[in-house]
Amino acid sequence: MSRIDHRSPKEIRNLIRKGKWDKPTAGLAMGYAQANLVILPQRYAFDFLLFCQRNPKPCPLLEVLEPGTFQTEFLSRDADIRTDLPRYNIYRNGKLEATVKEIKPIWEKDFVTFLLGCSFSFEEALLRANIPIRHIEENKNVPMFISSISCKPAGLFHGPMVVTMRPIPPDKVSRAVQITSRYISVHGAPVHIGDPSRIGIKNLKKPDFGDPVTIRKDEVPVFWACGVTPQAVVMKAKPDLCITHTPGHMFISDLLNEELASL
Amino acid sequence: MSRIDHRSPKEIRNLIRKGKWDKPTAGLAMGYAQANLVILPQRYAFDFLLFCQRNPKPCPLLEVLEPGTFQTEFLSRDADIRTDLPRYNIYRNGKLEATVKEIKPIWEKDFVTFLLGCSFSFEEALLRANIPIRHIEENKNVPMFISSISCKPAGLFHGPMVVTMRPIPPDKVSRAVQITSRYISVHGAPVHIGDPSRIGIKNLKKPDFGDPVTIRKDEVPVFWACGVTPQAVVMKAKPDLCITHTPGHMFISDLLNEELASL
Repeated sequence: MSRIDHRSPKEIRNLIRKGKWDKPTAGLAMGYAQANLVILPQRYAFDFLLFCQRNPKPCPLLEVLEPGTFQTEFLSRDADIRTDLPRYNIYRNGKLEATVKEIKPIWEKDFVTFLLGCSFSFEEALLRANIPIRHIEENKNVPMFISSISCKPAGLFHGPMVVTMRPIPPDKVSRAVQITSRYISVHGAPVHIGDPSRIGIKNLKKPDFGDPVTIRKDEVPVFWACGVTPQAVVMKAKPDLCITHTPGHMFISDLLNEELASL
Repeated sequence: MSRIDHRSPKEIRNLIRKGKWDKPTAGLAMGYAQANLVILPQRYAFDFLLFCQRNPKPCPLLEVLEPGTFQTEFLSRDADIRTDLPRYNIYRNGKLEATVKEIKPIWEKDFVTFLLGCSFSFEEALLRANIPIRHIEENKNVPMFISSISCKPAGLFHGPMVVTMRPIPPDKVSRAVQITSRYISVHGAPVHIGDPSRIGIKNLKKPDFGDPVTIRKDEVPVFWACGVTPQAVVMKAKPDLCITHTPGHMFISDLLNEELASL
């Protein structure tokens, strides 16, 4: 983690709210959970909530707000979802229309906000246990692949699971499973360990999103469900409107990663 | 467990479907998960799904069906929710109107079915670890109390958490926490350990539901979230229609309890 930051989540959210930070949030407010954002009009909300309930690994819900509500309660008592993320993507009919720094002007009373867990939380725990994370070592984005694993459909929403890959030394795979199993609300345990072809991945050097990383001799490719899945699934369903965070530009919560961990 | 039964879930569901079993399901199909049932018209479904998302300990969702669907997919590939429970309660405007053996005649296309985990699953695991369960030893119903812990409200739905109490010897409390922590989808770890007055319970001898049990000297009262909570919350919201299982008359799934356990 090259950029270590000791400002509190509240301080950083205030900077963002004032338009003074519009860059990615990786490395900010270390120790605190960051969240993916999906906002949909209420007519799509039941189907999407059901999709998340059926696919908790790619879509781990941290908080869902009532229709029209823009203040979180669980993740922070002091946040406005319309202004407190550095950048938002606005999609209409599945197409990116604009990237903006706040969504106050287009907010509607029927908007339902979904905040989903993100793998930053479990990566911190892996690093603390001295398990290497190659894309961090190489200062890259995590490699992501569209797998052949189908998500369970719900109403309008369906599609394949997107997975992240981290190469892990053989003697540390077991520990990596144990550690990430504790973080159910941020993707949890791996969905696949070993042979990429078994989940439809032909070439680990050519990720569908993010960057390729070095895989050393004997290292095992370990695959986790990825938070890009719900965004891909929503885009495919082409709702007339959907707002998400711009990739990497997450919501910073007041909740410690450890507060999300189970036994 | 006085009544041990070795018939498969499918065999038992077939008996129930044919009207040949209308008694409680405790002790049937040992090893397999049983589920609580809540059916609501679609106009209430988003609020109730959100309530469950916000209160996973009392309301651990095992499966939610699409509007109008009466066949499960995850819990069984071979079940009809309208006929495969021994008894159903029909509530109108929060009042019990009838108890019936099937709901085919009143099924509507907008009914949304929720199946929730039940503590039978973790009790089996506690018994296997030689942790005594007093109400089973004494052949009683588990004592249940309306606590002063508030559930997080969602839309129409709000109310206090109902908890079950099991007295545990001091040297086994820690193990009881560890074991039930693995069963997140069937209420998970205790919500409170020790002094009942701290969660608004005045007299352990006078449960609000179920039976009082013997608490031996030095035993610690341990409280778990209870599946009666969602039913109590729904009754309070007085939807014009709600169907549940009749208490004790659960849905028997094809899923092993072990399949529900985490690390």
